[in-house]
Amino acid sequence: MSDAPRTVFVLNGPNLNLLGKREPEIYGHETLRDVEERCTALATRLGFALRWHQSNREYEIIDWIHEARETAAAIVINPAAFSHTSVAILDALKAAELPVFEVHISNIHARESFRHHSYVSAMATGIIAGFGTQGYDFALRRAAQLLG
Amino acid sequence: MSDAPRTVFVLNGPNLNLLGKREPEIYGHETLRDVEERCTALATRLGFALRWHQSNREYEIIDWIHEARETAAAIVINPAAFSHTSVAILDALKAAELPVFEVHISNIHARESFRHHSYVSAMATGIIAGFGTQGYDFALRRAAQLLG
Amino acid sequence: MSDAPRTVFVLNGPNLNLLGKREPEIYGHETLRDVEERCTALATRLGFALRWHQSNREYEIIDWIHEARETAAAIVINPAAFSHTSVAILDALKAAELPVFEVHISNIHARESFRHHSYVSAMATGIIAGFGTQGYDFALRRAAQLLG
Amino acid sequence: MSDAPRTVFVLNGPNLNLLGKREPEIYGHETLRDVEERCTALATRLGFALRWHQSNREYEIIDWIHEARETAAAIVINPAAFSHTSVAILDALKAAELPVFEVHISNIHARESFRHHSYVSAMATGIIAGFGTQGYDFALRRAAQLLG
Amino acid sequence: MSDAPRTVFVLNGPNLNLLGKREPEIYGHETLRDVEERCTALATRLGFALRWHQSNREYEIIDWIHEARETAAAIVINPAAFSHTSVAILDALKAAELPVFEVHISNIHARESFRHHSYVSAMATGIIAGFGTQGYDFALRRAAQLLG
Amino acid sequence: MSDAPRTVFVLNGPNLNLLGKREPEIYGHETLRDVEERCTALATRLGFALRWHQSNREYEIIDWIHEARETAAAIVINPAAFSHTSVAILDALKAAELPVFEVHISNIHARESFRHHSYVSAMATGIIAGFGTQGYDFALRRAAQLLG
Amino acid sequence: MSDAPRTVFVLNGPNLNLLGKREPEIYGHETLRDVEERCTALATRLGFALRWHQSNREYEIIDWIHEARETAAAIVINPAAFSHTSVAILDALKAAELPVFEVHISNIHARESFRHHSYVSAMATGIIAGFGTQGYDFALRRAAQLLG
Amino acid sequence: MSDAPRTVFVLNGPNLNLLGKREPEIYGHETLRDVEERCTALATRLGFALRWHQSNREYEIIDWIHEARETAAAIVINPAAFSHTSVAILDALKAAELPVFEVHISNIHARESFRHHSYVSAMATGIIAGFGTQGYDFALRRAAQLLG
Amino acid sequence: MSDAPRTVFVLNGPNLNLLGKREPEIYGHETLRDVEERCTALATRLGFALRWHQSNREYEIIDWIHEARETAAAIVINPAAFSHTSVAILDALKAAELPVFEVHISNIHARESFRHHSYVSAMATGIIAGFGTQGYDFALRRAAQLLG
Amino acid sequence: MSDAPRTVFVLNGPNLNLLGKREPEIYGHETLRDVEERCTALATRLGFALRWHQSNREYEIIDWIHEARETAAAIVINPAAFSHTSVAILDALKAAELPVFEVHISNIHARESFRHHSYVSAMATGIIAGFGTQGYDFALRRAAQLLG
Amino acid sequence: MSDAPRTVFVLNGPNLNLLGKREPEIYGHETLRDVEERCTALATRLGFALRWHQSNREYEIIDWIHEARETAAAIVINPAAFSHTSVAILDALKAAELPVFEVHISNIHARESFRHHSYVSAMATGIIAGFGTQGYDFALRRAAQLLG
Amino acid sequence: MSDAPRTVFVLNGPNLNLLGKREPEIYGHETLRDVEERCTALATRLGFALRWHQSNREYEIIDWIHEARETAAAIVINPAAFSHTSVAILDALKAAELPVFEVHISNIHARESFRHHSYVSAMATGIIAGFGTQGYDFALRRAAQLLG
Repeated sequence: MSDAPRTVFVLNGPNLNLLGKREPEIYGHETLRDVEERCTALATRLGFALRWHQSNREYEIIDWIHEARETAAAIVINPAAFSHTSVAILDALKAAELPVFEVHISNIHARESFRHHSYVSAMATGIIAGFGTQGYDFALRRAAQLLG
Repeated sequence: MSDAPRTVFVLNGPNLNLLGKREPEIYGHETLRDVEERCTALATRLGFALRWHQSNREYEIIDWIHEARETAAAIVINPAAFSHTSVAILDALKAAELPVFEVHISNIHARESFRHHSYVSAMATGIIAGFGTQGYDFALRRAAQLLG
Repeated sequence: MSDAPRTVFVLNGPNLNLLGKREPEIYGHETLRDVEERCTALATRLGFALRWHQSNREYEIIDWIHEARETAAAIVINPAAFSHTSVAILDALKAAELPVFEVHISNIHARESFRHHSYVSAMATGIIAGFGTQGYDFALRRAAQLLG
Repeated sequence: MSDAPRTVFVLNGPNLNLLGKREPEIYGHETLRDVEERCTALATRLGFALRWHQSNREYEIIDWIHEARETAAAIVINPAAFSHTSVAILDALKAAELPVFEVHISNIHARESFRHHSYVSAMATGIIAGFGTQGYDFALRRAAQLLG
Repeated sequence: MSDAPRTVFVLNGPNLNLLGKREPEIYGHETLRDVEERCTALATRLGFALRWHQSNREYEIIDWIHEARETAAAIVINPAAFSHTSVAILDALKAAELPVFEVHISNIHARESFRHHSYVSAMATGIIAGFGTQGYDFALRRAAQLLG
Repeated sequence: MSDAPRTVFVLNGPNLNLLGKREPEIYGHETLRDVEERCTALATRLGFALRWHQSNREYEIIDWIHEARETAAAIVINPAAFSHTSVAILDALKAAELPVFEVHISNIHARESFRHHSYVSAMATGIIAGFGTQGYDFALRRAAQLLG
Repeated sequence: MSDAPRTVFVLNGPNLNLLGKREPEIYGHETLRDVEERCTALATRLGFALRWHQSNREYEIIDWIHEARETAAAIVINPAAFSHTSVAILDALKAAELPVFEVHISNIHARESFRHHSYVSAMATGIIAGFGTQGYDFALRRAAQLLG
Repeated sequence: MSDAPRTVFVLNGPNLNLLGKREPEIYGHETLRDVEERCTALATRLGFALRWHQSNREYEIIDWIHEARETAAAIVINPAAFSHTSVAILDALKAAELPVFEVHISNIHARESFRHHSYVSAMATGIIAGFGTQGYDFALRRAAQLLG
Repeated sequence: MSDAPRTVFVLNGPNLNLLGKREPEIYGHETLRDVEERCTALATRLGFALRWHQSNREYEIIDWIHEARETAAAIVINPAAFSHTSVAILDALKAAELPVFEVHISNIHARESFRHHSYVSAMATGIIAGFGTQGYDFALRRAAQLLG
Repeated sequence: MSDAPRTVFVLNGPNLNLLGKREPEIYGHETLRDVEERCTALATRLGFALRWHQSNREYEIIDWIHEARETAAAIVINPAAFSHTSVAILDALKAAELPVFEVHISNIHARESFRHHSYVSAMATGIIAGFGTQGYDFALRRAAQLLG
Repeated sequence: MSDAPRTVFVLNGPNLNLLGKREPEIYGHETLRDVEERCTALATRLGFALRWHQSNREYEIIDWIHEARETAAAIVINPAAFSHTSVAILDALKAAELPVFEVHISNIHARESFRHHSYVSAMATGIIAGFGTQGYDFALRRAAQLLG
Repeated sequence: MSDAPRTVFVLNGPNLNLLGKREPEIYGHETLRDVEERCTALATRLGFALRWHQSNREYEIIDWIHEARETAAAIVINPAAFSHTSVAILDALKAAELPVFEVHISNIHARESFRHHSYVSAMATGIIAGFGTQGYDFALRRAAQLLG
């Protein structure tokens, strides 16, 4: 797989733009931008490029997945609320035919029951939840491991 | 939390003793012992001791959790089949009052529907599935991060 | 709460732009614009400013909620079809940490069973359904009452 | 509809006699009697008479609805616990063939799941929940609006 | 069974007092009193006494069943809305240890789904629905047949 | 409706040919033929002709219903086991556009839960169960009453 | 808690007035009055007064609970059939803010499935079932223990 | 209906832009553009104009439906993933008051169970699935047939 | 596939023999025979023979499917009521190993919920519903397309 | 039981006539006739006569069961698809009051979920599935064992 | 029953060995050993011997029940987590054919919904929950009462 | 498969050690040891060795399955209560990659509904229930047949 594309897309779903801006005494001051910067540095060390996106728009996430299927080696996705409701994102991910790593910052299984089901999980390569923003790092590391 | 106990228990449930012994052309030749060795080395680098166990016996896992609540700083557990059926392990983990990281080597959400529910998940700090045996490494790293 | 922000957002979900344009012999000739004008006048009398929006786009509603959490004192929302399907709007509303009043022009409990459940209701302060467009007026009055 | 009867019945279900008598530091000192007085004054201003009742007895509520169907222009009802269990009240309301406004002081959708279903809602004209006792005022105003 | 008590109780549940008083152009002018008179005459011809009751009060129905268990040979009951909600009436009927005939004037299986289940049906001797008020006559005739 | 057809079809479903032949000490010696004879006499008294059929074949019952829709004034049907499984009989009965009376000799609501649902009940005019074979007589009498 | 009110209410639901009057060869000759007498004596020994009630009327039970919240130290309740259907009693008990002990003479979990759920259980302090009438004694003893 | 608008909208939901671009050895080389061209030619032959759209954006589909209700004679829609999740599209279609033909290229009933339910189906005039892209042709032909 | 058998079976389930005979002002005067004739002509133009059958007998439909598996190139089937209840027809179709097109004249998804599930759909190649009798034509055309 | 009838009926449901005729490289060349011959020989050795039937017609199976209840000592039945849908066969078997052995050639619990439930199983003496056609032999042997 | 065995087994399930060792400021300092001592003294006063066990091992509890069926007069069991998951313990208790009293220290009906069902309850003589450790005393007293 | 291992494991789950010791007038005097002896003799005749085990311990059964996967040609298992609750045994059996025959002495489908589901059945080669202990013999014979 040595000549496979060396870019990884990291896609973030709705409301994640608020990360770090709300209740910092609880969630800390780390913003999504902070996580992006840390992950970009990590990706560089791991030898691939990072495309980092966040959107509250389902269609943008779909479009990025379509773009990724042309150009990327793997997708890391935190679908947030869309995990539980978007068959369209599931279909886009299926069409991408790439390794997919699903990240949830909190443990969705300890929240309301409608959060226990994720359409994405059925087709994801790996799922990580409740590891805080470190889940992104581990997803990148796993992608690097799989991509060799 | 600097004077918290510096041991982490890694507990493995039923049938995991077969890891690496079965269909190596598919699952690879890595045995549970191999994973233990890699994790022990990693734990040492991270600055804590590792207690690694596997059992097909629910009671042994309960007893180890009871032991952990006295002496450990965190528990990493791959409950395997017990994830879906053991309230007793859930209760032991609740009593332990420790950070708990649940690891599944494969993606349980892509398997039979009865594997989609884990009693442990409701109280786990973090859950990682489908990351192969690397999930153990990431659970240890997360424990180290949380324990400071 | 006297120095709290004095703006109330009124957000309207998909297809509400058709109000008054369809079957006027049944639904009357009142358009959403008519309701907006009446409510703006009412808000002025009640002593606060009104931000009135309608969109068929889930993301616009999310973005307005994000904006409201910075600048508004309360949110009145008629999520229409999104009531039943959008976890993303629920999450945005939770993050807003504001009083939320959910308005449905018709009685959703007398319609198809999938309309009996609203994600928003679980976190709304108050819910009003089947009061026609007067439900908006009452939601505004209640907001004024709570905001003192 | 100018010569329709000009009386509105306001019916209150079980345990509402305790309103204001319990945990006043939380629920305030407003008793059901206080609400009745405020609503009676409001009704007078709106041009109709008010019949206000509370009972812990399902049959009294049924009997009052039967009486209302002979003499009233509308029914405002807070069925309280009977919302979730009384088909007999539903049937009485259906037989009354009057506009019915269902009031809940708290948001029943944010409480136990068995409170999310109300038999009355399926036939009510309008439903208001979580608006505190102001919900009664709004129900009266809506009745006045509909009765012209 | 010749020396068994020769009285049959006919018990009618909530809202049946409205029979014949509402929408006579649809339901006819026959009141519950009319049915009672016809059934009393029929009972006399069949050789037993009739006790006819209607109540919107669950406890009165229970009390009458208790009375019936001391003095009656059979119970004919149209529990109306209580069919679907009253375990207490079911328990009273069980304790009565008498033949019980359940009558519904309309076909409850062609109405809302919550009307498809009747607690009484599980222990009734016979059930008749959708035969109009003639169902009472047939229930009496069947009781006479069984009582010999 | 005086010139409506004066024939009533009585249709009996599978296994009813065994009536009276099995455990006579429990079910009595009355065969389906006995019931037919009694009902034929009753029908004559009531002024109409009787077509009596029994079949273990679903298609025969459908064919008879098709025949009835051309020639009969009403259908009395004991679908027996087909009550719970045959949408085809339901459709035939719907197409017949005739009064339909559903008879069950025993109380199906006191038996296994899969017997509590009958496809026929949703469209039947009346349903009688647990009245023994007298249920047929009552169904005929009701048909006579409705047909005037 | 030494100066808390020293009265305990024992409330009995519908059909319990038949205790001991029915099938004495099976249930024994002990009537509810007998149990009351034994419990009154026990209460005296335990140092508090007993208010013993039985009713087939839901509203009387609610009224007694309202009375108890003003004057009693604890409530022992055998809601009988109301266990499974009365949200109104649940709400009254919640409002009472007293220790509540739920008693069932028989084992409700070995009976029909609709008896396995009791609204009261969710808020009861303790539940005892299948201990015969001795359950009342134990509930009183437990109340005495808790009340000190 | 000769002077009804002579335009038909054909609306395609998310991910359909990938048609023919993915796994051509399996799905063939036919792109959505190819289907559009074939259908446009067919529409011309059938005597009406075609408006062909595809979008991954739910709101665009809603907006096109709103446009169609003003200007079109019928709607052909392949909602793809939105079939299963979008109440907003259902509501827009209801408001359009036009014949609606739902097309699925594959047989959705042979796929995951969540694809067996389509909100659109409940209000569609006709549904065609598993006929490949020929389903569009047949939907157009049916529209032509109905529009006369 | 040029030397594949060139016969297509069209099988019609129960009650379809009534088509066109019932409520012609609503359903039109087209009988199943009319449809058969139109389809036979179409089949001839498409280059294959047609075997057209209707039966109210499940076994005849099974037998025809068995015959088709020996001699036919495809099966078009309108299972009518058997869609929802016949596993035997499903099994016969599976055994036939032929393309199967399922036709419903009306939109079964807009009718009672038990009509939303069809056993046949799970294995059909294509499904068409709500296209009136034109659905048969389209199914034949699709078969011709697939058979080349 | 020495003078009990010495005939055993073996009844086979729909589509079993295809056994051995389809995909012989998978299912083998053994036809139902082959199995019948082997079983007849076995029965002779076991000392009783065999009546072997197959039908795609539910009514024939019912009729044979009725015949068996008059003349047979036991029934061996492979209801095939009727297992899951036929209450009529269940009722016939109940009426037969004979030992019943249910045979499935394949393991129905490893197939679609609707095949996991068999009406027959609830009343069968024994059930054997997934033993291939040898299941018939074992059922006969068990019958011989029980019949002594 | 005077010569029945005079030993009572008290069996405690998983994690109960932690009683009193965890959060004593909440649960008190009473250990399971303390309860055992108190119960042993009580048993002596009641005239029978006590066998007290605790285990985290399901099989030990089964083995003790097997032993009890040979030697004991009654079983008191707190199955803890095994209540909700162990059919094996249920079967052992059924085989024991002894009076069984099920004890839960806390009110399991006020906890997670999976704790509301206990396999043991279906066959227990009596159940006591939420009476703290006093539940054991009451169970012993009840056993003594029943054993005479 | 001639050089495959010639040993068959027969594994028996919890409470089966009581076989023949309990209610011999009902279940007979045959103990599990008796069955073992008969089966051992049969196995010898069939040309393979038998390993016979019983345990109330889930882990022992797992361990024996692990042993069997190394050394056996087939597994016969009566999981008893573990059938319904043990995913761990299911996983062990899956890992064994051997033919598995599931035996139940009684007909589990005629018992409580929780016994109708067996985790083992989904992967078993064959299942036999309600054939008494003869089910073991037939399972051995089938294994011999398959092993050639």
